[in-house]
Amino acid sequence: MKTLCLDVGGTKVAAAVQDGTLGAAVRRPTGDDPWETVIGLLDPLAAQGVDQLGVACGGPMEWPAGVVAPLNIPAWRGGFPLRDRLAERYAVPVRLHNDAVCVAVAEHAQGGWGVADLLGMVVSTGVGGGLVLGGRLVDGGTGNAGHVGHIVVDPIGPLCPCGGRGCLEAVARGPALVEWAQARGSKARDGVELGRLALQGDSLALQTFARAGRALGVGIASAIHLLDVRVVAVGGGLSQVPSVWPTLRRTLAEHARLSFAKDVRVEPARLGQESGLIGAAALFDDRYWSAD
Amino acid sequence: MKTLCLDVGGTKVAAAVQDGTLGAAVRRPTGDDPWETVIGLLDPLAAQGVDQLGVACGGPMEWPAGVVAPLNIPAWRGGFPLRDRLAERYAVPVRLHNDAVCVAVAEHAQGGWGVADLLGMVVSTGVGGGLVLGGRLVDGGTGNAGHVGHIVVDPIGPLCPCGGRGCLEAVARGPALVEWAQARGSKARDGVELGRLALQGDSLALQTFARAGRALGVGIASAIHLLDVRVVAVGGGLSQVPSVWPTLRRTLAEHARLSFAKDVRVEPARLGQESGLIGAAALFDDRYWSAD
Repeated sequence: MKTLCLDVGGTKVAAAVQDGTLGAAVRRPTGDDPWETVIGLLDPLAAQGVDQLGVACGGPMEWPAGVVAPLNIPAWRGGFPLRDRLAERYAVPVRLHNDAVCVAVAEHAQGGWGVADLLGMVVSTGVGGGLVLGGRLVDGGTGNAGHVGHIVVDPIGPLCPCGGRGCLEAVARGPALVEWAQARGSKARDGVELGRLALQGDSLALQTFARAGRALGVGIASAIHLLDVRVVAVGGGLSQVPSVWPTLRRTLAEHARLSFAKDVRVEPARLGQESGLIGAAALFDDRYWSAD
Repeated sequence: MKTLCLDVGGTKVAAAVQDGTLGAAVRRPTGDDPWETVIGLLDPLAAQGVDQLGVACGGPMEWPAGVVAPLNIPAWRGGFPLRDRLAERYAVPVRLHNDAVCVAVAEHAQGGWGVADLLGMVVSTGVGGGLVLGGRLVDGGTGNAGHVGHIVVDPIGPLCPCGGRGCLEAVARGPALVEWAQARGSKARDGVELGRLALQGDSLALQTFARAGRALGVGIASAIHLLDVRVVAVGGGLSQVPSVWPTLRRTLAEHARLSFAKDVRVEPARLGQESGLIGAAALFDDRYWSAD
């Protein structure tokens, strides 16, 4: 089976064909007309002849209908019937899920973790995730299971884009970290600069990432207790900042004290920027798809 | 099929036979020799001839081996092979799970909620729970999924019996509430008295339950975001104290803001004190048993 895979994010869109293994990915900036970007990438790949199309897309969305309304894609924020439009244009079965869910699926399917129970996380502009429990993807009642970024880590903490308060995402997403550091005098303009400063030993940058690590440690402890997963695979840009990990581990050790929680592996995700595409293709494995 | 059911708690042991419907339950104080109590209750029921034996027991435990080490049963705290001992004595298949898990199973199976995704909770001397997702019981990697009492609701909150800090259980379990109220001058000796005082309008008792309601609201918001359940059924003594609910609902509304989280039904559990027995019997339904 040749599977066409698509990963639609706020910044860029990626596509590839998986035929046994994943072929080279093509990428373009999402731009102002994301549908044009999508078909510009897919048309030439589809012309080779493909059997099915798997899609990872930023949430929220109506699932499994695949009407997407990604927070970070203004043109689609009112709702865009991506699944139907793709099925119509390419005349193949289309399966679509949240991009962070696809990353979790990819880690379970190809990360080599060797466990049936895994929480996959993406800590980046937002904080998302997906749950594989008992070897199967958990969708939840509306396809929204895995919103680990909205575990409350500090009930009197900062306001969250979701409208709540003290969510993990409110503290640990990249833009919130930059804002927190800037409010204390940092000159960092974005997360990448802040990460570079931390590597150079800048104490404010180090403090900022330590704070993110604490929030992650609290949130992950809660998730482990509730889910009894054996692995938490943490992906996204923040997972690659070394100064996040010591406080993450210390906080986790303080809060995850039940015997079954102590030996959970909490580690950086193993697959790189292709993981969304890999997970999108894996949606055609019935372990990861329970709808229609 | 005639199913013998057993519910072993720190205070009392209950047993009944389910033959189509659940027969009248017999109960005894757990006492100093819980095994004698258990066989004293089961022997006469088993003598009628039964096909299988379902057991709800306080945790923690090795699951599915059924070696139990309940925190609230001192005689067994070092570990007691309850599943094997019962299988040997009664020569029928035995299935055993955490008592809060059995309550969640019972609510899903017979609560009439009409949903596939449900979190069941027991808020009492401890705070436990169980997860039914996609219509199936989620066990987790070691049989410990559902430990909702150890979601962190206040990272700088009180120490928890588990060794952590600020767990939902550390704040909202009955003995912690009584202690909190006593430290502020309350004369209440236990949770029942504290509940009675609240009903009479005692302001310290009302404050105490309002605080428990806030902790529950935060913890339940986190669980809903992570799991995307459609129903949270809250059982145990605390769920029956009216003054818990207004702050629970207000806090939940503040923190559960994602669209899919807003219409989740968070309500008192529908089954009464028999729910452990009902869930124990339901372990013979393959939706609720994935082991051996």
